[in-house]
Amino acid sequence: MIHIIANNYVKADKVEEYLTLAMGLVEDTRNKDAGCIRYELVQDLKNPQILTMLEEWESQEALNNHMNSEHFKEVMAATADFSEKAAEIHVCKKIK
Amino acid sequence: MIHIIANNYVKADKVEEYLTLAMGLVEDTRNKDAGCIRYELVQDLKNPQILTMLEEWESQEALNNHMNSEHFKEVMAATADFSEKAAEIHVCKKIK
Repeated sequence: MIHIIANNYVKADKVEEYLTLAMGLVEDTRNKDAGCIRYELVQDLKNPQILTMLEEWESQEALNNHMNSEHFKEVMAATADFSEKAAEIHVCKKIK
Repeated sequence: MIHIIANNYVKADKVEEYLTLAMGLVEDTRNKDAGCIRYELVQDLKNPQILTMLEEWESQEALNNHMNSEHFKEVMAATADFSEKAAEIHVCKKIK
Protein backbone atom coordinates (compact mmCIF):
# COMPACT_ATOMS: atom_id res chain seq x y z
CA MET A 1 0.00 0.00 0.00
CA ILE A 2 1.36 3.40 -1.01
CA HIS A 3 0.17 6.81 0.11
CA ILE A 4 0.80 9.94 -1.93
CA ILE A 5 0.42 13.47 -0.63
CA ALA A 6 0.86 15.78 -3.61
CA ASN A 7 0.89 19.49 -2.79
CA ASN A 8 0.39 21.66 -5.85
CA TYR A 9 1.09 25.39 -5.64
CA VAL A 10 -1.11 26.98 -8.28
CA LYS A 11 -0.94 30.55 -9.58
CA ALA A 12 -3.81 32.64 -8.17
CA ASP A 13 -5.34 33.32 -11.59
CA LYS A 14 -5.22 29.63 -12.51
CA VAL A 15 -6.89 28.13 -9.45
CA GLU A 16 -10.39 27.89 -10.95
CA GLU A 17 -9.15 26.29 -14.15
CA TYR A 18 -6.94 23.92 -12.18
CA LEU A 19 -9.88 22.88 -10.00
CA THR A 20 -11.98 21.99 -13.04
CA LEU A 21 -9.24 19.89 -14.62
CA ALA A 22 -8.24 18.24 -11.35
CA MET A 23 -11.84 17.30 -10.54
CA GLY A 24 -12.04 15.59 -13.92
CA LEU A 25 -8.82 13.74 -13.12
CA VAL A 26 -10.24 12.57 -9.78
CA GLU A 27 -13.33 11.26 -11.54
CA ASP A 28 -11.38 9.48 -14.27
CA THR A 29 -8.87 8.00 -11.85
CA ARG A 30 -11.54 6.58 -9.56
CA ASN A 31 -13.48 5.13 -12.48
CA LYS A 32 -10.65 3.81 -14.60
CA ASP A 33 -7.51 3.07 -12.59
CA ALA A 34 -7.16 -0.39 -11.07
CA GLY A 35 -5.63 -0.46 -7.62
CA CYS A 36 -6.80 3.03 -6.67
CA ILE A 37 -8.04 2.92 -3.07
CA ARG A 38 -8.39 6.65 -2.58
CA TYR A 39 -7.98 9.73 -4.72
CA GLU A 40 -9.21 12.99 -3.26
CA LEU A 41 -8.65 16.65 -3.94
CA VAL A 42 -8.54 19.10 -1.02
CA GLN A 43 -7.87 22.83 -0.87
CA ASP A 44 -6.03 24.68 1.88
CA LEU A 45 -8.39 27.06 3.69
CA LYS A 46 -5.71 29.60 4.53
CA ASN A 47 -4.04 29.55 1.13
CA PRO A 48 -6.47 28.41 -1.60
CA GLN A 49 -3.54 28.25 -4.03
CA ILE A 50 -2.43 25.03 -2.32
CA LEU A 51 -4.35 22.14 -3.87
CA THR A 52 -3.48 18.73 -2.52
CA MET A 53 -4.19 15.31 -3.92
CA LEU A 54 -4.51 12.64 -1.22
CA GLU A 55 -3.95 9.24 -2.76
CA GLU A 56 -3.78 5.63 -1.71
CA TRP A 57 -2.69 2.85 -4.06
CA GLU A 58 -2.60 -0.90 -3.72
CA SER A 59 0.90 -1.15 -5.21
CA GLN A 60 3.68 0.73 -6.96
CA GLU A 61 2.57 -0.94 -10.19
CA ALA A 62 -0.95 0.50 -9.84
CA LEU A 63 0.55 3.95 -9.22
CA ASN A 64 2.84 3.61 -12.23
CA ASN A 65 -0.09 2.62 -14.45
CA HIS A 66 -2.01 5.66 -13.22
CA MET A 67 0.89 7.98 -14.03
CA ASN A 68 1.12 6.46 -17.50
CA SER A 69 -2.61 6.78 -18.18
CA GLU A 70 -3.89 9.16 -20.85
CA HIS A 71 -6.15 11.02 -18.41
CA PHE A 72 -3.24 11.68 -16.03
CA LYS A 73 -0.81 12.75 -18.75
CA GLU A 74 -3.41 15.01 -20.36
CA VAL A 75 -4.10 16.89 -17.13
CA MET A 76 -0.39 17.16 -16.33
CA ALA A 77 0.21 18.68 -19.78
CA ALA A 78 -2.80 21.01 -19.53
CA THR A 79 -1.74 22.32 -16.10
CA ALA A 80 2.02 22.41 -16.76
CA ASP A 81 2.12 26.23 -16.75
CA PHE A 82 -0.21 26.68 -13.77
CA SER A 83 2.36 26.18 -11.03
CA GLU A 84 3.72 29.00 -8.92
CA LYS A 85 6.44 26.66 -7.68
CA ALA A 86 7.27 22.99 -8.06
CA ALA A 87 4.83 20.53 -6.54
CA GLU A 88 5.90 18.74 -3.35
CA ILE A 89 5.22 15.04 -3.59
CA HIS A 90 5.46 12.86 -0.51
CA VAL A 91 5.43 9.12 -1.14
CA CYS A 92 4.57 7.45 2.15
CA LYS A 93 3.88 4.17 3.84
CA LYS A 94 1.02 3.74 6.24
CA ILE A 95 2.12 3.29 9.83
CA LYS A 96 -1.35 3.04 11.36
CA MET B 1 -16.13 18.33 6.84
CA ILE B 2 -12.57 19.36 7.62
CA HIS B 3 -9.35 17.76 6.42
CA ILE B 4 -6.08 18.12 8.28
CA ILE B 5 -2.68 17.30 6.84
CA ALA B 6 -0.20 17.64 9.68
CA ASN B 7 3.46 17.21 8.70
CA ASN B 8 5.71 16.62 11.68
CA TYR B 9 9.48 16.89 11.27
CA VAL B 10 10.96 14.66 13.94
CA LYS B 11 14.59 14.48 15.08
CA ALA B 12 16.27 11.34 13.73
CA ASP B 13 16.96 9.90 17.17
CA LYS B 14 13.36 10.46 18.25
CA VAL B 15 11.53 8.82 15.35
CA GLU B 16 11.00 5.44 17.02
CA GLU B 17 9.71 6.99 20.23
CA TYR B 18 7.49 9.37 18.26
CA LEU B 19 6.02 6.47 16.29
CA THR B 20 5.08 4.61 19.46
CA LEU B 21 3.36 7.63 20.99
CA ALA B 22 1.66 8.67 17.74
CA MET B 23 0.31 5.16 17.17
CA GLY B 24 -1.25 5.31 20.63
CA LEU B 25 -2.78 8.66 19.75
CA VAL B 26 -4.26 7.24 16.55
CA GLU B 27 -5.80 4.37 18.51
CA ASP B 28 -7.22 6.64 21.23
CA THR B 29 -8.55 9.19 18.74
CA ARG B 30 -10.35 6.58 16.66
CA ASN B 31 -11.84 4.96 19.75
CA LYS B 32 -12.76 8.00 21.78
CA ASP B 33 -13.24 11.11 19.63
CA ALA B 34 -16.72 11.76 18.26
CA GLY B 35 -16.81 13.14 14.74
CA CYS B 36 -13.52 11.55 13.69
CA ILE B 37 -13.93 10.18 10.18
CA ARG B 38 -10.31 9.40 9.53
CA TYR B 39 -7.09 9.56 11.52
CA GLU B 40 -4.06 7.92 9.97
CA LEU B 41 -0.33 8.11 10.45
CA VAL B 42 1.96 7.82 7.42
CA GLN B 43 5.73 8.07 7.06
CA ASP B 44 7.63 9.57 4.15
CA LEU B 45 9.64 6.87 2.36
CA LYS B 46 12.43 9.22 1.27
CA ASN B 47 12.72 11.03 4.59
CA PRO B 48 11.48 8.87 7.49
CA GLN B 49 11.74 11.91 9.77
CA ILE B 50 8.58 13.29 8.14
CA LEU B 51 5.59 11.76 9.93
CA THR B 52 2.22 12.94 8.69
CA MET B 53 -1.19 12.68 10.27
CA LEU B 54 -4.01 12.53 7.72
CA GLU B 55 -7.25 13.53 9.38
CA GLU B 56 -10.86 14.04 8.48
CA TRP B 57 -13.37 15.53 10.90
CA GLU B 58 -17.12 16.02 10.72
CA SER B 59 -16.92 19.58 12.05
CA GLN B 60 -14.68 22.24 13.57
CA GLU B 61 -16.27 21.45 16.93
CA ALA B 62 -15.24 17.79 16.69
CA LEU B 63 -11.69 18.86 15.83
CA ASN B 64 -11.62 21.31 18.75
CA ASN B 65 -12.80 18.62 21.14
CA HIS B 66 -10.06 16.31 19.87
CA MET B 67 -7.41 18.98 20.42
CA ASN B 68 -8.71 19.52 23.95
CA SER B 69 -8.76 15.82 24.80
CA GLU B 70 -6.42 14.40 27.42
CA HIS B 71 -4.92 11.85 25.01
CA PHE B 72 -4.08 14.56 22.47
CA LYS B 73 -2.62 16.97 25.00
CA GLU B 74 -0.57 14.22 26.64
CA VAL B 75 1.06 13.18 23.36
CA MET B 76 1.69 16.79 22.37
CA ALA B 77 3.43 17.39 25.71
CA ALA B 78 5.41 14.14 25.52
CA THR B 79 6.65 14.89 21.98
CA ALA B 80 7.19 18.64 22.43
CA ASP B 81 10.98 18.31 22.25
CA PHE B 82 11.01 15.82 19.38
CA SER B 83 10.66 18.31 16.54
CA GLU B 84 13.51 19.25 14.24
CA LYS B 85 11.42 22.17 12.98
CA ALA B 86 7.88 23.40 13.46
CA ALA B 87 5.10 21.17 12.18
CA GLU B 88 3.28 22.29 9.03
CA ILE B 89 -0.45 22.03 9.48
CA HIS B 90 -2.77 22.36 6.50
CA VAL B 91 -6.44 22.78 7.29
CA CYS B 92 -8.35 21.98 4.12
CA LYS B 93 -11.77 21.56 2.64
CA LYS B 94 -12.63 18.66 0.39
CA ILE B 95 -13.15 19.64 -3.23
CA LYS B 96 -13.84 16.17 -4.57
